[in-house]
Amino acid sequence: MRICFTLKVRAEMLAEYKLRHAAVWPEMLDALRATGWRNYSLFLAADGLLVGYLEADDLAACCARMKDYPVNARWQAEMAPFFEQLATGGADDNLMPLEEVFHLE
Amino acid sequence: MRICFTLKVRAEMLAEYKLRHAAVWPEMLDALRATGWRNYSLFLAADGLLVGYLEADDLAACCARMKDYPVNARWQAEMAPFFEQLATGGADDNLMPLEEVFHLE
Repeated sequence: MRICFTLKVRAEMLAEYKLRHAAVWPEMLDALRATGWRNYSLFLAADGLLVGYLEADDLAACCARMKDYPVNARWQAEMAPFFEQLATGGADDNLMPLEEVFHLE
Repeated sequence: MRICFTLKVRAEMLAEYKLRHAAVWPEMLDALRATGWRNYSLFLAADGLLVGYLEADDLAACCARMKDYPVNARWQAEMAPFFEQLATGGADDNLMPLEEVFHLE
């Protein structure tokens, strides 16, 4: 299953967002791997549009399993101020997948 | 190399865009395969944001090679009216890759 979601990074925090994602904590990477996030990329546009792409069996299950890893709560708490338009919770509570309308292997 | 680009589909044409992409011409699929587009998905948001994701050795080379396939010109001519904010040419002349800021295998 291929999943795409978008978020919006605050304009004044783009540079810092990039720096932080060039050095994601190893424990966070381990948690992502252990909970089924595969081929996971984040792409950032100049206007702050952030696009996430990953392959997973079930995104909701991946996000739910991440809640078992304390490192996720610490990471999400540090990342939340970077985003515009979050409702309650962290980015991981606000992933709205787009509809896949085409795929070519 | 992982590539992500965005385009904007006109709000009044979203349903038709989805229908057309559920039935892309086989010759167009063959041309994409032959020119190096791999694991290529298009995702559509309710507001018309279109996200493309693919894996390729060189996006510019893929787009250039597609120009050798007459089916591409026919396809792009049919698709161009679906998009907002295109400069000259078709969607394939307006692919601006976003920066990949994170990746996990």
